Amino acid sequence: MNILSVAAHPDDTEILCAGTLIRYAREGHRVTIAAFTNGSMGDLVIKPEEMGAIRKKEAQAAADLIGAKLIWPAVADEQVFPDQQHRAIMVDILREADPDIIFTHSPNDYHPDHRYVSQLVFDAYSQKGLPFIPHQSLPPCRLDNAQIYYMDNVCGIRFMPSEYVDISDTFELKKQMLCCHKSQLKDMKDEANTDVLELIETQARFRGLAAGCKYAEGFNRLEAYQRGLTKRVLP
Amino acid sequence: MNILSVAAHPDDTEILCAGTLIRYAREGHRVTIAAFTNGSMGDLVIKPEEMGAIRKKEAQAAADLIGAKLIWPAVADEQVFPDQQHRAIMVDILREADPDIIFTHSPNDYHPDHRYVSQLVFDAYSQKGLPFIPHQSLPPCRLDNAQIYYMDNVCGIRFMPSEYVDISDTFELKKQMLCCHKSQLKDMKDEANTDVLELIETQARFRGLAAGCKYAEGFNRLEAYQRGLTKRVLP
Amino acid sequence: MNILSVAAHPDDTEILCAGTLIRYAREGHRVTIAAFTNGSMGDLVIKPEEMGAIRKKEAQAAADLIGAKLIWPAVADEQVFPDQQHRAIMVDILREADPDIIFTHSPNDYHPDHRYVSQLVFDAYSQKGLPFIPHQSLPPCRLDNAQIYYMDNVCGIRFMPSEYVDISDTFELKKQMLCCHKSQLKDMKDEANTDVLELIETQARFRGLAAGCKYAEGFNRLEAYQRGLTKRVLP
Amino acid sequence: MNILSVAAHPDDTEILCAGTLIRYAREGHRVTIAAFTNGSMGDLVIKPEEMGAIRKKEAQAAADLIGAKLIWPAVADEQVFPDQQHRAIMVDILREADPDIIFTHSPNDYHPDHRYVSQLVFDAYSQKGLPFIPHQSLPPCRLDNAQIYYMDNVCGIRFMPSEYVDISDTFELKKQMLCCHKSQLKDMKDEANTDVLELIETQARFRGLAAGCKYAEGFNRLEAYQRGLTKRVLP
Amino acid sequence: MNILSVAAHPDDTEILCAGTLIRYAREGHRVTIAAFTNGSMGDLVIKPEEMGAIRKKEAQAAADLIGAKLIWPAVADEQVFPDQQHRAIMVDILREADPDIIFTHSPNDYHPDHRYVSQLVFDAYSQKGLPFIPHQSLPPCRLDNAQIYYMDNVCGIRFMPSEYVDISDTFELKKQMLCCHKSQLKDMKDEANTDVLELIETQARFRGLAAGCKYAEGFNRLEAYQRGLTKRVLP
Amino acid sequence: MNILSVAAHPDDTEILCAGTLIRYAREGHRVTIAAFTNGSMGDLVIKPEEMGAIRKKEAQAAADLIGAKLIWPAVADEQVFPDQQHRAIMVDILREADPDIIFTHSPNDYHPDHRYVSQLVFDAYSQKGLPFIPHQSLPPCRLDNAQIYYMDNVCGIRFMPSEYVDISDTFELKKQMLCCHKSQLKDMKDEANTDVLELIETQARFRGLAAGCKYAEGFNRLEAYQRGLTKRVLP
Repeated sequence: MNILSVAAHPDDTEILCAGTLIRYAREGHRVTIAAFTNGSMGDLVIKPEEMGAIRKKEAQAAADLIGAKLIWPAVADEQVFPDQQHRAIMVDILREADPDIIFTHSPNDYHPDHRYVSQLVFDAYSQKGLPFIPHQSLPPCRLDNAQIYYMDNVCGIRFMPSEYVDISDTFELKKQMLCCHKSQLKDMKDEANTDVLELIETQARFRGLAAGCKYAEGFNRLEAYQRGLTKRVLP
Repeated sequence: MNILSVAAHPDDTEILCAGTLIRYAREGHRVTIAAFTNGSMGDLVIKPEEMGAIRKKEAQAAADLIGAKLIWPAVADEQVFPDQQHRAIMVDILREADPDIIFTHSPNDYHPDHRYVSQLVFDAYSQKGLPFIPHQSLPPCRLDNAQIYYMDNVCGIRFMPSEYVDISDTFELKKQMLCCHKSQLKDMKDEANTDVLELIETQARFRGLAAGCKYAEGFNRLEAYQRGLTKRVLP
Repeated sequence: MNILSVAAHPDDTEILCAGTLIRYAREGHRVTIAAFTNGSMGDLVIKPEEMGAIRKKEAQAAADLIGAKLIWPAVADEQVFPDQQHRAIMVDILREADPDIIFTHSPNDYHPDHRYVSQLVFDAYSQKGLPFIPHQSLPPCRLDNAQIYYMDNVCGIRFMPSEYVDISDTFELKKQMLCCHKSQLKDMKDEANTDVLELIETQARFRGLAAGCKYAEGFNRLEAYQRGLTKRVLP
Repeated sequence: MNILSVAAHPDDTEILCAGTLIRYAREGHRVTIAAFTNGSMGDLVIKPEEMGAIRKKEAQAAADLIGAKLIWPAVADEQVFPDQQHRAIMVDILREADPDIIFTHSPNDYHPDHRYVSQLVFDAYSQKGLPFIPHQSLPPCRLDNAQIYYMDNVCGIRFMPSEYVDISDTFELKKQMLCCHKSQLKDMKDEANTDVLELIETQARFRGLAAGCKYAEGFNRLEAYQRGLTKRVLP
Repeated sequence: MNILSVAAHPDDTEILCAGTLIRYAREGHRVTIAAFTNGSMGDLVIKPEEMGAIRKKEAQAAADLIGAKLIWPAVADEQVFPDQQHRAIMVDILREADPDIIFTHSPNDYHPDHRYVSQLVFDAYSQKGLPFIPHQSLPPCRLDNAQIYYMDNVCGIRFMPSEYVDISDTFELKKQMLCCHKSQLKDMKDEANTDVLELIETQARFRGLAAGCKYAEGFNRLEAYQRGLTKRVLP
Repeated sequence: MNILSVAAHPDDTEILCAGTLIRYAREGHRVTIAAFTNGSMGDLVIKPEEMGAIRKKEAQAAADLIGAKLIWPAVADEQVFPDQQHRAIMVDILREADPDIIFTHSPNDYHPDHRYVSQLVFDAYSQKGLPFIPHQSLPPCRLDNAQIYYMDNVCGIRFMPSEYVDISDTFELKKQMLCCHKSQLKDMKDEANTDVLELIETQARFRGLAAGCKYAEGFNRLEAYQRGLTKRVLP
């Protein structure tokens, strides 16, 4: 299967669903990680342009750890809007990945970029397989129905998972993927007093307690017309 | 009364509330059907321009069956956004129909055009009766409070009706209205393996079982300031 | 139609739906008011037995104002349980009233007697029309489907009405009905520092603002199998 | 695996989850059907005792069609309460079946027996594996965590499935199982004007449309401590 | 603390949270009132430009009554959109006020301007403290976490407060603040048949009954990452 | 203030709200811990009578650590029902503690005893201050309104806190309190493969991340008539 994760910032995928992506990768599925924005606002001192370049390298390094393809449209960080321009970018992302399964942010997460990326995924879904959509760079991909899974919110606020993936065996590599985002680990500690590694360990352990395993990631599936699920597609 | 249905695509009204519109028409009310987009993406081979022309004819034929007026702003299919340009179009639709009752999509239906049309109806409502709104082609209509009813979602996913209309006597004509959209019946079968006529029969029968009649359409009303309902306005 | 209100305490019907009952009575429908408990705990000094007698007189006086029949099973106040004994009493109440419409408390109101009366109405509903239910004093009434309406919660807490009844013309008589419950008006003021007349005026006015009239009562209907509503049965 | 369906009345399992049970049976799992009550009130003329005997034969015939074991505690129909006596019966049912997966009614279905059976399953779950529970006839079964799945509500009212089972290949046998309940097919037609066979076909087709297959049954899983699901246990 | 109220129209703050702002002001906190639009559509006869000027004077007079600072970006009334242009304005408002607590509309209130202002506050929040956000006139304010409180909906429709502020002692001044908006009191009476002073008295009294005091305003807090509340910040 | 925690089993209070109780105790408030059942089923080998005795000692030791009073009605474990007998016990508990604040289980936690204890607290609340309630051993306590707070669910499943208490300074003592329940720490490890100490650390840390502190406990308040909160009563 083709697996796509579309998150707002370069480290969101690592924080919220890397453990699951690793399982897919190990099972031989084709994994694509799209960082919708370039994360250029992720530092209070380093200028956006330089920051964007740093974060692209970090994201590429993380993707390389599991042999995933990185899509990097370089949208300006903190400037995501549900308009025509951003939707066209999202449609091209979906067409490039041609996914069977899409992971993205929950529509009610705490950051506007998270919410709008989630909305854009929903909006672009209907257009990925249509031939005459204007403003697109790429030809349509399959019209087939993919499943959209919403990732857990950061710290689980206002999110109650309905499905879990056991990531006990992939958690260490998930941490290594996150460690590629060196600039953010440092910034989050300095500016937001947050140890992101400890955060993901606590969240994975908390979800694991619910799921009856060591570490887990939690998800909710978008229920939509003709996409009711009669089998499990999560690993 | 003036009855307005505003749906995203030329066949949505037929699928989701035609049985109710027929009842209004038979009772002598003035019915207007607005197809917000031209449905030009509704085929994988026929070009949008040609498709738009075909669908306008089909929509007109369906409206003619019940003597309804058709509003056709010819917005590009799959390109609805909640911006100034689209809102101005929606305000003009409301002004032209001057409705007592408005039917539109539920805000959580499965297609982005459905959701944004619903949002635009909500947004335009406050402006239909105001005299100084810029960018409008038509003069304001009544400031009076109309009721907004959300139509069932396709296949009822994430929708639980609170009010029902018995369409046992109008279901045959509803089917004939839908049959006017020949291009879609064929396309849905070829491309999405969906028999739309069977779909609406199943949905109408399912809602009828809930409502204790043969066939029914289900709705939810928007509860809003000074629009609490002290009488039934559905047929 | 036969209209039945079943509330937990002798003044609850007056507080929560009397304005609507008056409208039914004026339209010629047969109204029954059942006070499930005798309200015998409604005073901190007067003994339960005496209090129960006082409250029965008060309830009868209120019912007489609109020509309603009073059902008074004299269940002990503050001692309602969802068990066999109380259900049998509730089944007999429904059989005696043979209702087309039933008003009762919302399942999430603030008092346990309110909640359990609501639950008992739900539970007894399926048995009112069956011939072989044991422990019953009365023969079955119609098997036909009645509609269950949940009354507003006191002060509207955790209750959002979906339907309203305009009680502008009946509010004065509703107040008079409530005034029959002299013991409670005094007790609520002395012990709970509550002016119940002012409370119902505020609540009726608040719901009226929502509904676009002077005074209103708000309700939610129980949606259940074959009881979807295709017409309005509220006045 | 051991599969258990516990429903309130002898035909509820057939209506709401037989298609899924057949799939389990065909895959070689051990299926048990528990009819919590004897359905003795299922006729307006035939006396309860005789009716109970008729319905036991019907239920046995249906179970035999798929080689399922029938548990028949003969609780009086329309007399289910969440008390000690009924809980002890439910604990013994769970102990006898020793289930890996339990199907039961949704807590908000339309009939009190349905709701209380659902509540009793929830309540009995914690006690099935404990050694010192008083009043039990059977020794404890496994303490291991089973999954509880709530079946669809009749006509889907107030129920939105999160998981589906494709029953296209088992629907015919599901109908045959339901046809074993001859007394009910006739009674529902005579007294409630309901063709139950048509009802289950409509509901299975409606859920199938949502799930993208011909016929489906829909379910919701109880999310509980250490029972988060990291794999699919539905067929 | 710095307290900021951002509402869509010049009188919304007075209607929905002035009683609380007065308490903050009296306790010595710095209060800022931002009227996001100029309210220029608030009359059916007076032209927008003139109306905007009138309303600015009225808003200033109300703010002066409690020594609050008024922010007046003069956005066109009924023309709020969640786009880049409006977000930049909102970010500047937050930067100017540098708030510890923000009051804004609930995301589900009845007017599109209310909803989009609420959405813009949510969206701008993440950017108020970042140094490189483009299109901004003002330098970043503190990155520290402020609390966002959603104000009650008008007439409480679809709003259930979780926290209350006792405004018994400030209600008279709240009314005086509202009375500064003379143009609206008259317009609402003439055009919408609404006595706004009576409306706020009813709503404050209704919330007061729930809260056990004479008058109250009700709020809901946005629960978000690292903004869980371990102390009360409301007065 | 008088603080009361009523939980189903002897260690539930320690797991779910001890950190908060310690803060109250340190501030000089009077703390009472009621263990509704004797926890006699908490072992698969030790007989209930002996187990009950062990658990009483453990509970007493834990309470002693913070100078709390222990109420021990010795209700049989796994045998809680919402009937008259159990309600009378709960009313006496409330009367003995005469609480200003009550902590109990959330109504939707995973264990039936948890749910029924929560329901009994709700039910008994209205009767604690009334003079003529039958079957009570203790005289009524204050009629004044206490606040009911629902504790977090175990592992947070289906629970989203609205208020938090910072327990960073009390977490060590909370662990010591839990360690008094030696029999359970061992049993949970042996039989349910659960390290309860690790569980509470993960849950407290997860809630702390949400609340912006090291460790936190999360709660939801019961919103009820005249109990809207205009001040914070949590520590």
